[in-house]
Amino acid sequence: MLNTKFTKLTNIQYPIVQAGMAGGITTPELVAAVSNAGGLGTIGAGYMTADQLRSAIRSVKQMTEHSFGVNLFAPQEIAFSEDDVQRMNEHLDHIRVQLGIEQSPLIKKYAESFDDQIQVILDERVPVFSFTFGIPSSDVLKQLKHQGTIVIGKATTVNEAIQLEAAGVDAIVVQGSESGGHRGTFLTDASDALIGTMALVPQVVDHVSVPVIASGGIMDGRGLIASLALGASAVQMGTAFVTCAESGAHKLYKESVLGNQEDATEITFAYSGKAARGIRTKFTQAMKDYHGDVPPYPVQNALTRDIRQAAAKQNNPEYMSLWAGQGLRLATNRTANTIIHECVQQALGVFGNITLLDK
Amino acid sequence: MLNTKFTKLTNIQYPIVQAGMAGGITTPELVAAVSNAGGLGTIGAGYMTADQLRSAIRSVKQMTEHSFGVNLFAPQEIAFSEDDVQRMNEHLDHIRVQLGIEQSPLIKKYAESFDDQIQVILDERVPVFSFTFGIPSSDVLKQLKHQGTIVIGKATTVNEAIQLEAAGVDAIVVQGSESGGHRGTFLTDASDALIGTMALVPQVVDHVSVPVIASGGIMDGRGLIASLALGASAVQMGTAFVTCAESGAHKLYKESVLGNQEDATEITFAYSGKAARGIRTKFTQAMKDYHGDVPPYPVQNALTRDIRQAAAKQNNPEYMSLWAGQGLRLATNRTANTIIHECVQQALGVFGNITLLDK
Repeated sequence: MLNTKFTKLTNIQYPIVQAGMAGGITTPELVAAVSNAGGLGTIGAGYMTADQLRSAIRSVKQMTEHSFGVNLFAPQEIAFSEDDVQRMNEHLDHIRVQLGIEQSPLIKKYAESFDDQIQVILDERVPVFSFTFGIPSSDVLKQLKHQGTIVIGKATTVNEAIQLEAAGVDAIVVQGSESGGHRGTFLTDASDALIGTMALVPQVVDHVSVPVIASGGIMDGRGLIASLALGASAVQMGTAFVTCAESGAHKLYKESVLGNQEDATEITFAYSGKAARGIRTKFTQAMKDYHGDVPPYPVQNALTRDIRQAAAKQNNPEYMSLWAGQGLRLATNRTANTIIHECVQQALGVFGNITLLDK
Repeated sequence: MLNTKFTKLTNIQYPIVQAGMAGGITTPELVAAVSNAGGLGTIGAGYMTADQLRSAIRSVKQMTEHSFGVNLFAPQEIAFSEDDVQRMNEHLDHIRVQLGIEQSPLIKKYAESFDDQIQVILDERVPVFSFTFGIPSSDVLKQLKHQGTIVIGKATTVNEAIQLEAAGVDAIVVQGSESGGHRGTFLTDASDALIGTMALVPQVVDHVSVPVIASGGIMDGRGLIASLALGASAVQMGTAFVTCAESGAHKLYKESVLGNQEDATEITFAYSGKAARGIRTKFTQAMKDYHGDVPPYPVQNALTRDIRQAAAKQNNPEYMSLWAGQGLRLATNRTANTIIHECVQQALGVFGNITLLDK
């Protein structure tokens, strides 16, 4: 079977984590379905208010008795000028006009409060907490670990993984360059940290002792076995779940993922101010003509929110953020339960009987 | 054991191909050592004259009775202006001055004759012929196959693999974005075809029936087993052999590969006019300030040759092309024989006894 250090650590049946994708994809139905199928479902809570998060957690708890996780964005120090914001807004106004948006939005806050979000995770005694974009304070990590929450960080280089282990995480998601959505890079420029999963996983495994969760381009049982061969103790799959039946992704986002090929994505800063992999759109093309500084995340993310929301309402995928990894041809619209079980079955068939050394 | 469709096809013991890296790395000693160890050694002949190639082939034949290959660059249609060449030369002159090169070189021809190179391969009845950058004419492929030479193409996308199979190749090297050296992309922009090995291999395997050889980020037995899990029938390793004892790579090139980390490389057009992955240098940095059009391969390659040669003579790696993949931390200075045997041993140990389904 597929028992690993990670399945033991988190008390799950199969070494498959559903990525905590933010932005409405990870419905309680999806998270619970993954956990009920033997994987680890994850609420992507980066953009949620504390109230929304509490409500999501309680819904998941009603639908599963198994372990599940919540993913948040670690707070970051950022620097930007109001001039940059104004120039970007003027550039975005051209797009707003095309979409019939009457005026630039009044932005009250750029992001939700991480402290409020963490308090909910503590109050609700969430089994697994994962984070990206950096490392939360040691106080926060201590409190979580003190009450028994398993803590998982995200690395895109060996040095980031070493730093996460030193900070006391229980496991590390290693994000290869194939991965869809935001890059978790926090020690270097994101464009310097686009290391493919095949190269990155064994190099990280050689430098840390906590379980490694491979991510990036893994869509089925072949990717699962390949990742275990590289020394990972589990895989994290995102794109594979974007298009599944329980996903809350917009219909046209799902259709775009299902209808595109492996070379349809690019790394862009255009939507959020942070490097992320998604399907090329008219918006990412239009932003290539912008030669000023793109404000950093979460500022740019807040600036483009009205555009993305209007596009979604108008069923215009060209101005929506269509985050996706490079395994697009392998995306399906099956249920989460079917995805997990067929992944496991395929994995067990790859080499016939195997002996997992990571136990 | 590790018998696959590819080992049967080429009559080799282990599914490990040494990449046909051009530029003096693949000495006859290296090629023969790989083939004698049970892998498939390959002469990287892209820059060789017909005479040099004949001599290399004969040397290899004297050192091994096993199968080996020759790799060439498929000829391409290119378009460039003499103005672009002149402006580039003026830009390069600043670097020439720094290196003490007295004047821009008089370039008699941009590349060796593919037809002359192919004639040698036919005359010498080379067991395996591999190519990159496109697809040679059907006449050439027919002649090679007619005399029993195994023909291997290179793909960086699914569509390229489909086109290669239609052209009649016997196997396809699938080049993931981790791979060092030149990108083999020929149907699209190279920057749109940087798909990680983990994502690319299974998608190609689903669309062709000839054996697939995975490449990109594979450095040891973990990568070998992972690639077989993804559906490949063999791996191709380049960077792993650059630094080995028999490699003809410049001492400082080897030291740079051995001393760098996974995030030290970038994709650059600067050295040759064609996208390639190598270690960042002062030269690649300096070329970022050049805002004109870089002449295409092989023109730019010919224009920078004197700079690369002078740098090598002066032991200045900052102006040499240091092609390398993203598995840098796993590079070693062992012999080719040891690399192959330890790779096989490690592969067989990953999961204990396995049953290869690809037979």
